[in-house]
Amino acid sequence: MATVTLTTDFGSNDPFVGIVKGILASRAPAARVVDVTHAIPPQDVFAGALVLRHAAPFFPPGTIHVAVVDPGVGTVRPALCVSTDEALFVGPDNGLLSLAAPPAAVRRIVHLTEERFFLSPRSSTFHGRDVFAPVAAALATGTPPASLGPEVSAMQTLAVPEVHREGGQLRGQVIYVDGFGNLVTNLTPGALPAGAVVLRVGTVRVRGVAPAYSAVGPGETVAVVNSWGLIEFAIRDGSARTVLDARVGTAVVVEPAP
Amino acid sequence: MATVTLTTDFGSNDPFVGIVKGILASRAPAARVVDVTHAIPPQDVFAGALVLRHAAPFFPPGTIHVAVVDPGVGTVRPALCVSTDEALFVGPDNGLLSLAAPPAAVRRIVHLTEERFFLSPRSSTFHGRDVFAPVAAALATGTPPASLGPEVSAMQTLAVPEVHREGGQLRGQVIYVDGFGNLVTNLTPGALPAGAVVLRVGTVRVRGVAPAYSAVGPGETVAVVNSWGLIEFAIRDGSARTVLDARVGTAVVVEPAP
Amino acid sequence: MATVTLTTDFGSNDPFVGIVKGILASRAPAARVVDVTHAIPPQDVFAGALVLRHAAPFFPPGTIHVAVVDPGVGTVRPALCVSTDEALFVGPDNGLLSLAAPPAAVRRIVHLTEERFFLSPRSSTFHGRDVFAPVAAALATGTPPASLGPEVSAMQTLAVPEVHREGGQLRGQVIYVDGFGNLVTNLTPGALPAGAVVLRVGTVRVRGVAPAYSAVGPGETVAVVNSWGLIEFAIRDGSARTVLDARVGTAVVVEPAP
Repeated sequence: MATVTLTTDFGSNDPFVGIVKGILASRAPAARVVDVTHAIPPQDVFAGALVLRHAAPFFPPGTIHVAVVDPGVGTVRPALCVSTDEALFVGPDNGLLSLAAPPAAVRRIVHLTEERFFLSPRSSTFHGRDVFAPVAAALATGTPPASLGPEVSAMQTLAVPEVHREGGQLRGQVIYVDGFGNLVTNLTPGALPAGAVVLRVGTVRVRGVAPAYSAVGPGETVAVVNSWGLIEFAIRDGSARTVLDARVGTAVVVEPAP
Repeated sequence: MATVTLTTDFGSNDPFVGIVKGILASRAPAARVVDVTHAIPPQDVFAGALVLRHAAPFFPPGTIHVAVVDPGVGTVRPALCVSTDEALFVGPDNGLLSLAAPPAAVRRIVHLTEERFFLSPRSSTFHGRDVFAPVAAALATGTPPASLGPEVSAMQTLAVPEVHREGGQLRGQVIYVDGFGNLVTNLTPGALPAGAVVLRVGTVRVRGVAPAYSAVGPGETVAVVNSWGLIEFAIRDGSARTVLDARVGTAVVVEPAP
Repeated sequence: MATVTLTTDFGSNDPFVGIVKGILASRAPAARVVDVTHAIPPQDVFAGALVLRHAAPFFPPGTIHVAVVDPGVGTVRPALCVSTDEALFVGPDNGLLSLAAPPAAVRRIVHLTEERFFLSPRSSTFHGRDVFAPVAAALATGTPPASLGPEVSAMQTLAVPEVHREGGQLRGQVIYVDGFGNLVTNLTPGALPAGAVVLRVGTVRVRGVAPAYSAVGPGETVAVVNSWGLIEFAIRDGSARTVLDARVGTAVVVEPAP
């Protein structure tokens, strides 16, 4: 049984996700459909790419990951099916697929041009329904990617912002804020200097990386290694986003403890 | 395998939808259950009817569509099973089913009176759990609609507001606002006058219907034909609802371009 | 086919729920997965326990209910598998499971210590992914609870606040507020005095318990027996939470009608 996942910015207020699932139920009735999330901030391609990178590895081999965060819908931007050794990725060519399927992992990139797999007529506003869902259904029922269009050599890519070293400092940033208000950074524990460190986000400093949120008292800030393997700032029993007034892009600094 | 869809105003904060799915898992374990949406504005029967109209056609033939937006729960308003050539619709008799199953398409209307199909005891506040889910489970496991109660000749109906022509103007309105803030109107492209037109929503005017959202620059207003086949106003990379301060009922005017 | 339910405070903004489902799809591909809700207020263990109590009875016998509202994640608080005659419950030992599986119904409590069933490496922040989902997958594929760790004799429990009688008054409180703004109390109809009563929530009084929301006019307050068998205050076509400025803990008083 094929598994199809959905990662979109469609939200849950409208029937858009349900309609996509109607297409899948009609054309690939045996497929299992799993929502990764539909709450990617509208048109935030980077957030979608990051979420897909951290979700895809937990699905069965051969899973078909459909991702739609698509400010360019209806324009000439290509639609893609990208194969890795682990999975297939279907979505617009705007970088959305490129963190889950980075260049080194990509085995094949196909432009989705074979319109016989699409819905007809095709709207200019909802390719999730008209292109990506029916293509995913085709893949889920055994159509090989090569039948969907010509192979191409490259796709748009995004990158996680780099961490910089300046003097004794390591300078990163918040790259994702989760629903609990936790601040996920681009710092990995392996990048931290040996020895005791101080981590700073905005004007708040914490000493070292703790083993769990509960290492501090209620209302205090803590840095942990989160489930994505990244350094994350949290406030115990609170929202770091709110209390620290932080957001994607807020600077984070690590330096040796004085 | 039967498909059961759910369209409600239950929201996602409570376990109501999960409980409905528990009934379906218990009584129709082989059925596939698909959420259309649970975010119909509370007790907004027209919004529910409109959403169901635009979602139902994308599901497999024979799908059982359960819709619950039910301000009259616990009163004498009947509960219905409505058959068309394409699908079955289950919900309260308040017009909710009448845009997806308009009079010309209806083949049979049954009042749900056979209480042996319901949960017992039955609450006066949650017929989604006690009436509609178990009836959907009965249908999904092969119970014919005629077993559920007597056939009746009519049901409550709703209508999409009509478009009016006044002088050279076509006057419609916003009938739905989606989660991106796009303003969906009751205007169809076929209703527009031939030749160049200007479309006005509130105090904003746009020239003509564009092929895609991206036909305008960021922050600009655009009119497109959306995935429901209706004229829709959007703001590129923004929310038309917020920027134009529009809502369901806001007037829309089309006139020949000067 | 095993059924696995999920009740969490993960919200729907992040991919956390999707990742849990990825683990289940990978390790228990035949299991049906049903969301009860993911909108338990962050770290509100009591709300999670209450929701689970009222949802679990509607699922098939043998259902595996996974609940994760876990402020103590990463600490030494145990993780549990609790068996009743009806179902299995998996979650942290913080009371979350104790209203759905109260002491009198519990047949076996197991501490989840057999790490071979967990993901490896295991994060300190996301035991839903690393512990609870893989344990649920093990149960869904036939692993007996006794294989998951040692049996223990007790677990943390929570209790619904008691109703007090003072003079002729019955004094309770709001214990849950649903998404419609309805105020669910800890009063059961059986606890009410015989004869006509007045019910008071905040400064608003209503006479008697009505058969349905629609027993009053629009904008008026009504008390009904809700689908959980509890007395609930609602405002017809409105939000009692907003209008009455009530919340969990707001006092409710019942007294004989004057």
